[in-house]
Amino acid sequence: MTAVASHQPGRLMAAEIAEQPAVWRRLLADGPAAGLDAAAAQIRRRAPRTVLFVARGTSDHAALYAKYLAEIRLGLPAGLVSPSTMTAYGARPDLRDVLMIGISQSGGSPDLVRSLEVARAQGALTVAVTNNADSALARAAHAHVDVLAGAERSVAATKSYTAQLLALYLLLDRVVDGNGGGTSAAEALPDLGDALLARDAEIAAIAQRYRFAQRMITTGRGYSYPTAREAALKLMETAYVSAQAFSGADLLHGPLALVDPQVPVLAVVNEGVGGTAMEDVLPRLAERRADVCCVGHPAAVARAAVGFALPTGVPEELSPLLEILPFQLLARHVAVDRGEDPDAPRGLSKITETL
Amino acid sequence: MTAVASHQPGRLMAAEIAEQPAVWRRLLADGPAAGLDAAAAQIRRRAPRTVLFVARGTSDHAALYAKYLAEIRLGLPAGLVSPSTMTAYGARPDLRDVLMIGISQSGGSPDLVRSLEVARAQGALTVAVTNNADSALARAAHAHVDVLAGAERSVAATKSYTAQLLALYLLLDRVVDGNGGGTSAAEALPDLGDALLARDAEIAAIAQRYRFAQRMITTGRGYSYPTAREAALKLMETAYVSAQAFSGADLLHGPLALVDPQVPVLAVVNEGVGGTAMEDVLPRLAERRADVCCVGHPAAVARAAVGFALPTGVPEELSPLLEILPFQLLARHVAVDRGEDPDAPRGLSKITETL
Repeated sequence: MTAVASHQPGRLMAAEIAEQPAVWRRLLADGPAAGLDAAAAQIRRRAPRTVLFVARGTSDHAALYAKYLAEIRLGLPAGLVSPSTMTAYGARPDLRDVLMIGISQSGGSPDLVRSLEVARAQGALTVAVTNNADSALARAAHAHVDVLAGAERSVAATKSYTAQLLALYLLLDRVVDGNGGGTSAAEALPDLGDALLARDAEIAAIAQRYRFAQRMITTGRGYSYPTAREAALKLMETAYVSAQAFSGADLLHGPLALVDPQVPVLAVVNEGVGGTAMEDVLPRLAERRADVCCVGHPAAVARAAVGFALPTGVPEELSPLLEILPFQLLARHVAVDRGEDPDAPRGLSKITETL
Repeated sequence: MTAVASHQPGRLMAAEIAEQPAVWRRLLADGPAAGLDAAAAQIRRRAPRTVLFVARGTSDHAALYAKYLAEIRLGLPAGLVSPSTMTAYGARPDLRDVLMIGISQSGGSPDLVRSLEVARAQGALTVAVTNNADSALARAAHAHVDVLAGAERSVAATKSYTAQLLALYLLLDRVVDGNGGGTSAAEALPDLGDALLARDAEIAAIAQRYRFAQRMITTGRGYSYPTAREAALKLMETAYVSAQAFSGADLLHGPLALVDPQVPVLAVVNEGVGGTAMEDVLPRLAERRADVCCVGHPAAVARAAVGFALPTGVPEELSPLLEILPFQLLARHVAVDRGEDPDAPRGLSKITETL
């Protein structure tokens, strides 16, 4: 497999990016098989007062997305757990009334498994969201949601990420609305995704602009902040760019100083509240003469030096599924243009075991 | 004032770095005046089930530190709130049984004030930790803790950061132990801080090594992860380095790929659990032929290409106060060596108002 990949760098990543709309269709059709209804029923029964997420890497960005959903749609305080507190430090917090959701593509990282085990022993209702129903994380939890993405072979996660986003959206939507009414809102996504992915040539052209960029900044607010985080990680792990992600607000609290015309900025400006909140940020970037590529709302894209317009009319809480697609394509193009193989980044393996 | 600073770049920052041990002495001596006892008594009375923090920039790193304290020492689930959910998105979560701590040097950022106001209306016990008892954030909260750092004039926060760390340590210690027994553990810090700061010439020499580095990675685990985050922010906002901070575990989940001998790594290896957990990370960095500067335990420093040893025998949960000092000095030296003025970074002002 490595030999084949070395002849066509980024072949696996391209195939898995392209598969995403099909994965979403499967998840929308097979909610019961994925375990969504059973997990949602357990959560509704327990009526948790707090939601905690535990995850690493790309899955941590899906957790950040779900944290916004939990705070805004469930109206519950939510947080991202530092796994080391319950593993290395041996903390045994009182977790009655807490829902803890562990998210991992492989379901195999020992620190996440241990975190869910401890949380369960401490009274939490535990849910695992993985791409492997036979994984240790799935077994450790009270309930398991399968993101149904199929085997992911590229080290850089793509289809498992958007499958996690959709699974978490559908899960928490079922918690709010026992009938899963949000499914219909999501049904337009697969066709929109296919249409976006067909515009790969636009992204290939944009990638030329960043051929020699060593540093980049990605930014977004609200539901689009996880997109900025995941976009930066893709650029780091495939194209070895020092890409830094900031929420638009945090960017103004210090990191703005490092912005100059030599540090390109990729800004996600969605059609909703998060995009509106970026209106305070873009003029400050312009003052620093930043080179801004805008991904999102066509009106914002029209005002930027470079951009990629996303379809309008998508509910803000679902827009992250579409927003990340151009960044996945971009990371792959930049990596391949530089002679790298994004399917097998240097120094990484598919399953990362941290303790 | 600007004219004076322009003659001696970094003069204010140097003075405020040097003041830190005196600030700690004041806070250790004047706990009641700082409001620590009153705030701790309110928290003990309410016996919260969850702790949430809300902060931006440097103060967010103090919040991350306190999140570890809350999880490990208080045994409570803890999280960092995304302010936009309660401001821009209008989320109104049920916050009975929740302690929300807002942290801000100035106490003036509108989104933080609004977050505490909403939290209070939603049933949370609210505590403000600021450097200004007359601030809007202090007024918005049930209780206020003054970090007693004195006026901070350099845009890059230094003394207010370690004052926040110490105030949060003393506050949460008083919640665990109504008698504030942790104060005695912290009493050695000011003298140790003075001794560290006297080694500025060592840092000036290390700074030479990074004169032309545009990219850097900082890393640490557990209690030292906030140090890595704050170190990166100082390097970004004063020396305009694209400095990226990762927990040691997260580094292995993707960003490791961008490490090569041209991206220097600054690793914080403390004497406790967090330092031990870094033992999995350092060999992976060596495989990537990373240039590692180690700050922390003398044994770990001895094994690194470059390093700065910290005193031993300091409890791990207090080590972040000392750990950040060499990074503050380093950021200032690198900035001044590059002809920048770290007292007044381009594009920033002292109080950042985000909505």
